Amino acid sequence: MEVTKITREVKNDSYEMASLPAETRNSALAAISAALCDRADDIFAANAKDLAAAEKNALAGPLLKRLKFDRQKLDDVISGIVSLIGLPDPLFKTLLARQLDDGLRLYRVTCPIGVIGVIFESRPDALVQIASLCLKSGNCCILKGGSEASNTNRALYDIISAAASGAGIPRGFLTLIETREGISELLGCHESIDLIIPRGSNEFVQYIMANSKIPVMGHADGVCHVYVDASADIDKAVSIAVDSKTQYVAACNTVETLLVHKDAAGRFLPALKKAMDQKCVTILGCEKTVGLIGCTEASESDFGREYLDYILAVKIVDDLDEAIAHINKYGSHHTDSIVAENEEAVEKFMLLVDSAGVYHNCSTRFADGFRYGFGAEVGISTGKLHARGPVGLEGLVTYKYKLFGSGHIVADYAEGKKSFHFIDL
Amino acid sequence: MEVTKITREVKNDSYEMASLPAETRNSALAAISAALCDRADDIFAANAKDLAAAEKNALAGPLLKRLKFDRQKLDDVISGIVSLIGLPDPLFKTLLARQLDDGLRLYRVTCPIGVIGVIFESRPDALVQIASLCLKSGNCCILKGGSEASNTNRALYDIISAAASGAGIPRGFLTLIETREGISELLGCHESIDLIIPRGSNEFVQYIMANSKIPVMGHADGVCHVYVDASADIDKAVSIAVDSKTQYVAACNTVETLLVHKDAAGRFLPALKKAMDQKCVTILGCEKTVGLIGCTEASESDFGREYLDYILAVKIVDDLDEAIAHINKYGSHHTDSIVAENEEAVEKFMLLVDSAGVYHNCSTRFADGFRYGFGAEVGISTGKLHARGPVGLEGLVTYKYKLFGSGHIVADYAEGKKSFHFIDL
Repeated sequence: MEVTKITREVKNDSYEMASLPAETRNSALAAISAALCDRADDIFAANAKDLAAAEKNALAGPLLKRLKFDRQKLDDVISGIVSLIGLPDPLFKTLLARQLDDGLRLYRVTCPIGVIGVIFESRPDALVQIASLCLKSGNCCILKGGSEASNTNRALYDIISAAASGAGIPRGFLTLIETREGISELLGCHESIDLIIPRGSNEFVQYIMANSKIPVMGHADGVCHVYVDASADIDKAVSIAVDSKTQYVAACNTVETLLVHKDAAGRFLPALKKAMDQKCVTILGCEKTVGLIGCTEASESDFGREYLDYILAVKIVDDLDEAIAHINKYGSHHTDSIVAENEEAVEKFMLLVDSAGVYHNCSTRFADGFRYGFGAEVGISTGKLHARGPVGLEGLVTYKYKLFGSGHIVADYAEGKKSFHFIDL
Repeated sequence: MEVTKITREVKNDSYEMASLPAETRNSALAAISAALCDRADDIFAANAKDLAAAEKNALAGPLLKRLKFDRQKLDDVISGIVSLIGLPDPLFKTLLARQLDDGLRLYRVTCPIGVIGVIFESRPDALVQIASLCLKSGNCCILKGGSEASNTNRALYDIISAAASGAGIPRGFLTLIETREGISELLGCHESIDLIIPRGSNEFVQYIMANSKIPVMGHADGVCHVYVDASADIDKAVSIAVDSKTQYVAACNTVETLLVHKDAAGRFLPALKKAMDQKCVTILGCEKTVGLIGCTEASESDFGREYLDYILAVKIVDDLDEAIAHINKYGSHHTDSIVAENEEAVEKFMLLVDSAGVYHNCSTRFADGFRYGFGAEVGISTGKLHARGPVGLEGLVTYKYKLFGSGHIVADYAEGKKSFHFIDL
């Protein structure tokens, strides 16, 4: 009941939030950035508590790394806020202006989505990024972070909330849910929450989708591919494969399956094997791959699996068409890259691969809001509706139609007394 | 199993569909328009069968009117196709072009959503509109129309399908599901279908949403408001109220609740009563309204109800703020209109009412794709994600990110050897 009541109040504040001018939102971002600097020691102290508890509970190394909020992370989130302030206002933008008839003018104008619920992993820098993206885009946000980061999240929340309120932002802008039970209550608030962004495992995202009427934006799986064409430059291909696989194995934009054209396999695979051995990556290959480089044989189900680990499935394909069909069938429509020098092959791949990101001669690891120049991201969407790929400010706004008349009624048009004369303004 | 198999084939065709140039899609639209003209008598004969069966089953008058497909309806859909051909291509549009660093270029380019399932009422003209919108936007579509229109739908489907195939469009572009069981099979095809657009009752849309993993675009309720401000011109207000209520009572953009500022109530309500009496509209009023014009008293639950009938709920409010709060609480975020001469009141209403359409001094009945100049619409969305309000071509496309490099890897940026230099191209 508590959460339901709070979200209703947040909903009410969301209308005021939607009407704030850009200057107010930007000054609040500046105030938050200053407050985070001033209160750095409090944040680090809270984070030390979380880290101590996590070490006691033997949290795995990569998770500890995510949990840690040090000077470097603080500097990163602050420079993120500074770049957000510099970005153009995503609100009040006129996307369409059209006269329908004399004195009847239609405008499509951007506005915030309203109230956004974000459930995220134990990674305190995400709290700051999400809160600042929501503020810049005029949305209220309700956050539930991973419990391992509870002290750090509470400290960050207190600082950001106070700074925002001081700068004239409604109290409902930022809410922190601190109990696990809060999540199920949150999922029931479809009358107050406009969008849920869950970050985490595939199972978790599926669970959210199955248990709420609230629209969900996120990605289920990250099964990315690199396809090495017959025309590929082998050095580029090896370097891109290694980066896509090992630059950060636990990310959703990491490659899981590599496809290679049969005419390139003889030159490419031995070089790939050597490079992957150096990085301790296990290759699971199709029968022909095993014949060429003597790796473990892959089963059918090894293709289409998200390893998030030092494992790479490899398959030799007869041609580009087979590669495209394989990616569209086994992939998760996240990010797929072709390594090729033949322009026709590149064009076909970019057109026919049905993914949020289609890349040529570069690593799949570039799929990221920062690297796209969005300032930050709230997540990556593998859905096709609303926002696709890394979701920054533009994914957090919608639009409304404003129609201005002077007594216009439809009967006049239905009865033929008047007719529409569309003129784009 | 049948439907599941078909949708998988449609999915495969959707990739080819996504790569067709605008000329091919436009010529196919022209071929469809010509074929519909040529085969008019076959369509009318099929429709006569449906009408005869419907009359035998005592279908209600308004439903018969929807079911009828005569020369006038044919002319309308053909002129719709002609205007679609003239609209700019919604595909292959570059929405963003940015250099991330030397030789690393990012493009956001529009592309079709893929496979769209549309379940629609017994209204054959909708089949033609939906099919042509999907063709223009490069989508494959799977249609299930109301059973009362089965003969007409089959005739239209045969004509459109053959004309499209003859013009080089893949067979999978258009599929007609003809059994009721087909719907539940369709809802299970989340791996092949990218979007479902259900048209019909609130219950039906809710049922679809609850029974499929496929994203749904549509509108649940159409609870629209007209608010008559203290500054309203009373003649305009009466005319707009009458048109919004009675121009077509069964539409989703028909007004269901009228709010009037207490300072305008004395002048406005007697005039409204008189006009509504002439149109046989029953007014259900709040206590104060009853005091003024002696109508039936409304209960709390009469506000927020979608009547789709000659019934209008009326409430006197103390001020603009109360009107806005009422609309945001009881409305369905579809279309709401303010009648006012005071510009400040108008601006506040347009900003704070959280609906797909916010109107000033005009009828709510303008909320329609044709009237907005979209050529046609597949439906009206009251959701906030992806498309809001009447959904035309733009709501049927998504985008993908294309990234072109020449061997770029993320490690170089993570290790500080290179850094991003964003330049919008």
